[in-house]
Amino acid sequence: MPADEIEALAFDVFGTVVDWRSGITEAFTRVGDRAGISADWPSVADAWRRRYRPTLDRVTRGELAWQNFDGLHRIMLDDVLAEHGLDGSDGLGEADREEMVRAWHGLPPWPDAVPGLTRLRERFILSTLSNGHVAMLVHLAKGGGLPFDCILSVELVGTYKPDPEVYRSASRFLDLPPERVLMVACHPYDLRAAAAEGMRTGFVTRPLEWGPDTRVEPPPEGVDLVAEDFNDLAARLGC
Amino acid sequence: MPADEIEALAFDVFGTVVDWRSGITEAFTRVGDRAGISADWPSVADAWRRRYRPTLDRVTRGELAWQNFDGLHRIMLDDVLAEHGLDGSDGLGEADREEMVRAWHGLPPWPDAVPGLTRLRERFILSTLSNGHVAMLVHLAKGGGLPFDCILSVELVGTYKPDPEVYRSASRFLDLPPERVLMVACHPYDLRAAAAEGMRTGFVTRPLEWGPDTRVEPPPEGVDLVAEDFNDLAARLGC
Repeated sequence: MPADEIEALAFDVFGTVVDWRSGITEAFTRVGDRAGISADWPSVADAWRRRYRPTLDRVTRGELAWQNFDGLHRIMLDDVLAEHGLDGSDGLGEADREEMVRAWHGLPPWPDAVPGLTRLRERFILSTLSNGHVAMLVHLAKGGGLPFDCILSVELVGTYKPDPEVYRSASRFLDLPPERVLMVACHPYDLRAAAAEGMRTGFVTRPLEWGPDTRVEPPPEGVDLVAEDFNDLAARLGC
Repeated sequence: MPADEIEALAFDVFGTVVDWRSGITEAFTRVGDRAGISADWPSVADAWRRRYRPTLDRVTRGELAWQNFDGLHRIMLDDVLAEHGLDGSDGLGEADREEMVRAWHGLPPWPDAVPGLTRLRERFILSTLSNGHVAMLVHLAKGGGLPFDCILSVELVGTYKPDPEVYRSASRFLDLPPERVLMVACHPYDLRAAAAEGMRTGFVTRPLEWGPDTRVEPPPEGVDLVAEDFNDLAARLGC
C-alpha cells in the first residue's frame, strides 16, 4: 500500500493510543489507598475491561440502549466490584466510583503516541475513531497532548464498533473514499470490520495492553501494514 | 459572567475565525487571471456570500434537502456567475468552479485568530460550531494552524444554524450544561439562537468581514461579553 494513497488516519484509542491498564490501576490504587482498601488492582482493572466487549455487543444487538461510556463503565464497575467483594460498607463508595469512571478520561498515552502522531500529522489528517464518546475523547486528547485534527466517535452515529456504520461514518465525515483512510488499531476485530467497509488497515502491536507476559493477538489476515508502535508507523508511512 | 463558569468555547467560523472575503477574492483573482477574465471580484465574492443565508433558510424550512457546503456553494456560485455575466464560453469553466468551491476550505484566519485561540486553549476546551461540514472545518483548521480541540458541525445533526438543534448538539457532544459553553460569533443571529438554548454568548467585532467602510452590526441585546478580537477575548476571559 503506497503511502500516497492515504489521506487520513483514523485511530482506535483505548489500548491503541492510551494505556488504559496503567491508568486504571493507578486510579484504583489512589482511590483504594484513600479508602483504606487494598486489592489486586491490576486484576480488577482487567476484569472491568473484560466486560467491555460483551457489554457493547449487547448494545449493538439492541438488548441495551445506547449510552455513553460513562454510563456503561459505571454499570460494569458496579458488577466488577461486587464480584470482587469490594462493595458494601467497606468497599468503594459513590464518589470513589464516579472518580473511577472519570479516570477513563485521563488515561496516559503510550510513550510513542505523542511523538508518532506529531510526525504523522505533518502529512495526514489524524482522527480518532473510538467507542469513547466525544467529550471523553476531547478530555483524553487535551490531557495527553494528542495532536488529533478531528474527534470522531461512535457517539455521532449512536452505535458501537464493529457496527459497519461506524466505519462508514469516518469516510462520510472526512469526505474521503474509504480506501483513502487508514484505520489504525491494535485489535484485529476492529481492523477486520474496517477492511470490510473498504478502509485500509494498519495494525500496531501493543504487547503490554493487558500487562506483561500476556498473549498477544496476531495481526488480522490481509492487513495493509504492521507497525511496532506509532514511531514505526510514521516511518513506514514515510513521515 | 465570571470566566470560571465557562468550560468550553464554541466558535462560529466563517467571518468569526476566518476572513472569507479576502480568501475568496484572492481565489477569484487567481482563477480569473488564469482564464483571462477580469471582474470586480470583491463584489462577486460578496454576492456569493449574500446568497448564503437565504439558501440555508430554504434548507431549514425543508424546501431544499440538506447537503454540505460544497454542494450549496456550487449551486450559489453558478447563479452568481450567471448574474454577473461570467458564465458561458468566456466565463469560468467546470474546473475553475470546482477550485472556487474548494477555496472555502483554505480561507485565511484573521491575524488574531491563532494567537488568541492558542491563549484560550490553555484554559478552555475549544470547538468549532459551524455551518461548514466536518471535512471542510478540518481542512480550515489544519491549513490555518487553528488549535481546536474538537470539530463540531451542523453536519452532525443534518440541519443549519440557527436551528436550535445545532446549539443543543454542542452541549450534548461536549457533555456540558449549555451555560458552561460560550458561543463566540460576530453575527448577532447566531448568538441570539445560542442564548435561546441557554448558552453563554460572546460577540467579537469583525468590522472588515464585508470589506472596509461597511455597516457593522451591533452586538445583540443581553450578550454576556463583547470583544474586539480573539486576543481581547482571551484577556477578558483571564487567559
